Amino acid sequence: MVGSRLESIIKDVSEYVEPDASEKNNIEKITETLIERAEDAIESLPVEGDVIQVGSTARGTWISGDRDIDIFICLPPSLSREKLEQYGLEVGQKVLPDGKQEYAEHPYIRGHIEGFAVDVVPCFAVEDATEGQSAVDRTPFHTEYLQDRLNDSLRTEIRITKQFLKGIGVYGSDLKTMGFSGYLTELLVLEYGGFVSLLNNVTEWDPPVYLDPDNHAQSTFEDPLIVIDPTDPTRNVAAVVSEENVAKLIHYARECLNQPRRDLFFPSEPDPLSKSMMRNNLNERDTTPLAIRFSTPDLVEDQLHPQLRRSLDGLTAGLDRHGFDVIRSAYFTNKSTVLFVEVSVDSLANIERHKGPPVSVQEHAKQFYEKYEGDNSVYGPFIIDGHYVVERNRTVTTPREFIEKNLFEIALGRNIRDQLQSNSYEVLFGEETTQLVEEFGTELAEYFQPKL
Amino acid sequence: MVGSRLESIIKDVSEYVEPDASEKNNIEKITETLIERAEDAIESLPVEGDVIQVGSTARGTWISGDRDIDIFICLPPSLSREKLEQYGLEVGQKVLPDGKQEYAEHPYIRGHIEGFAVDVVPCFAVEDATEGQSAVDRTPFHTEYLQDRLNDSLRTEIRITKQFLKGIGVYGSDLKTMGFSGYLTELLVLEYGGFVSLLNNVTEWDPPVYLDPDNHAQSTFEDPLIVIDPTDPTRNVAAVVSEENVAKLIHYARECLNQPRRDLFFPSEPDPLSKSMMRNNLNERDTTPLAIRFSTPDLVEDQLHPQLRRSLDGLTAGLDRHGFDVIRSAYFTNKSTVLFVEVSVDSLANIERHKGPPVSVQEHAKQFYEKYEGDNSVYGPFIIDGHYVVERNRTVTTPREFIEKNLFEIALGRNIRDQLQSNSYEVLFGEETTQLVEEFGTELAEYFQPKL
Repeated sequence: MVGSRLESIIKDVSEYVEPDASEKNNIEKITETLIERAEDAIESLPVEGDVIQVGSTARGTWISGDRDIDIFICLPPSLSREKLEQYGLEVGQKVLPDGKQEYAEHPYIRGHIEGFAVDVVPCFAVEDATEGQSAVDRTPFHTEYLQDRLNDSLRTEIRITKQFLKGIGVYGSDLKTMGFSGYLTELLVLEYGGFVSLLNNVTEWDPPVYLDPDNHAQSTFEDPLIVIDPTDPTRNVAAVVSEENVAKLIHYARECLNQPRRDLFFPSEPDPLSKSMMRNNLNERDTTPLAIRFSTPDLVEDQLHPQLRRSLDGLTAGLDRHGFDVIRSAYFTNKSTVLFVEVSVDSLANIERHKGPPVSVQEHAKQFYEKYEGDNSVYGPFIIDGHYVVERNRTVTTPREFIEKNLFEIALGRNIRDQLQSNSYEVLFGEETTQLVEEFGTELAEYFQPKL
Repeated sequence: MVGSRLESIIKDVSEYVEPDASEKNNIEKITETLIERAEDAIESLPVEGDVIQVGSTARGTWISGDRDIDIFICLPPSLSREKLEQYGLEVGQKVLPDGKQEYAEHPYIRGHIEGFAVDVVPCFAVEDATEGQSAVDRTPFHTEYLQDRLNDSLRTEIRITKQFLKGIGVYGSDLKTMGFSGYLTELLVLEYGGFVSLLNNVTEWDPPVYLDPDNHAQSTFEDPLIVIDPTDPTRNVAAVVSEENVAKLIHYARECLNQPRRDLFFPSEPDPLSKSMMRNNLNERDTTPLAIRFSTPDLVEDQLHPQLRRSLDGLTAGLDRHGFDVIRSAYFTNKSTVLFVEVSVDSLANIERHKGPPVSVQEHAKQFYEKYEGDNSVYGPFIIDGHYVVERNRTVTTPREFIEKNLFEIALGRNIRDQLQSNSYEVLFGEETTQLVEEFGTELAEYFQPKL
């Protein structure tokens, strides 16, 4: 049963996401032009080749206003990878004379035509998706699989679902978002039959969630969401989706069914936080905030974000291990990048209890006792609960000292470590962190108003 | 192999602990007088009775200078407990006209004669130790068992062992010490054949240690040291010995064999700590010390110490649970009693992370979300690692606030709680705790110089 409130919101959303006839015609016309140019270019190659359109514009599942067109140049699998790339780029340059070379799994050409972003990507024309050497070789099979199964009604359901996933911040398989790809979204709608049915099913999800549309899995997976690729039984289409994003989808599916509202699909950005509001928040929370700020290293996003995530994890794990009790943390990245952490403890005693082995464990106990017996810098050894114990000096007693002494001993992303070691970085504490609102006011507003 | 250094220390100790002929004669003479008086007194009772001497003076295992004589009045088990007590006290008063009534498991008379402390204790003359209604009924069997097996050489070994256990602070089965009783010590020396052999064996102990001299155990035990009573197969003679004291014995056995020295047997008390030395220690440690001081409640030691231990455990567990990270704690008792704790953290952020259920756990998750959804006093709910999370205000952010708000919510000994609730108590923080040296200078010196 779909409540009338949800029905009316869905109607509203579908009007927004559904392209009109002129938009459809326009894309069709431009795509035809591009394919013709590509076919002409292939003629002058010494090998055979096919041109196909892939992606949501090919499958008719794009959201109105999306302006991405993907053209794949399918070349014989007998070619070397070098030749594939060389021929692919040649064709791409002829299709898009102003295009520039980009790099994902292999190089491709990105250019613009009448406001559309066009990618011309070479791939191997393999017989079967499982024979693909890289993700792009599988892409044509995904398009084919879906084109055979979609109708206009399902396409509308897909568009609504994509807008919902965008609205709740989990759409996109890039490593910043770690969310749902277009292909995954389309498979899920196909599996459950529509948007509302998807929501109803999702509210029952209890990860790990396992779906195998073609019932042909050949591998096992450890991910929170597992959707076996119908075109490749060894692959989990949802491998990149984070635990957090699965949980978010479950939460918002419940919300959308129980308290449907338009802003789940079209959320508004919060106003940037002002310096004085940030100061108020910090005073109210009475935490100890600290931030490490540095120039953003020159990396593609899919390299940058995993490394920032790892660096932040290393920083918070180190602070926790030293007893400062991290409450929350986040990274923000733009021109500069900030690792931001709030801890609960701003200073610790000079000493800490260091528990040794049980007195009865012969060699190990003797070694511990002999090590500290004559050490005037410790209190003890004495015995507590059957173990030798000493009280020794802490290596660091404040978060500031931790960063000064231990920053390069924690697990940082490789390029982040290089960046910090070879360039200047700045450490901000307490009140000083309020200057971050100048560059990251919106991010900090979200941080200090963390409502779902 | 006993090193010559250890040999010469043992010789020295044995000269100190071995009573000379005149001491032995004196005790014998006094004991005879006491037994005669008791036998005369029994004559006027309407029942039959026996007088026996028990304890280390009866078994010839006392340490020179010990001045305790124990006389037991054994009466028929057919008597009621009231009659037993009445007759026992009658006899006791005749033996010790100046004696006073004391109370352990039942009442007895304690008095003094020629500088000796004499206890006259009534017991049931049961046929077998297992039939005893209380510990005192078993005592005569212990004395009989040992008297049958000891010779003068073993008696010397026992005296040396007792002095060692005293020296390292683990002698006595009272609930303050939780150490080795005289009977237990004698059984251990008998089992291992002598002091040095006992040490050698103890260095191999890996608790739980299990000894059953008569090979007749009928129960199982959870204690760190289990020595089945040869006179009662259902009883662990070492039940009261704490894990810490077993570990201390293992440690000091190793020490005594590897680095024998006289002060293991005759330790010197540290000089009392001065106020300025305590201040220096606290500054060096940079801990946050706190103390709760109150008049010592009027309880026998065997009731007082377990309650103080429990109260201190309750206090430290509460402080740890609230995030203040207890480093060490101790109680001191004299006219007044002090629960003393050093914590590592002197203040925490106003907020703490409160982790809810996984988003996917239907009802439980919904309840959590709905509880906090409209609550403006919390940050969130948001999602971390698949769980709902809020940041809520801490109930207490300093150790002082913890004691002000939560003192009577922690697990305190019953009489300690009564004492605190019905009488005044004082809470000292930081620098203020240095005034404790006035009453507890020696205890605090041991606390801040915790060497084994």
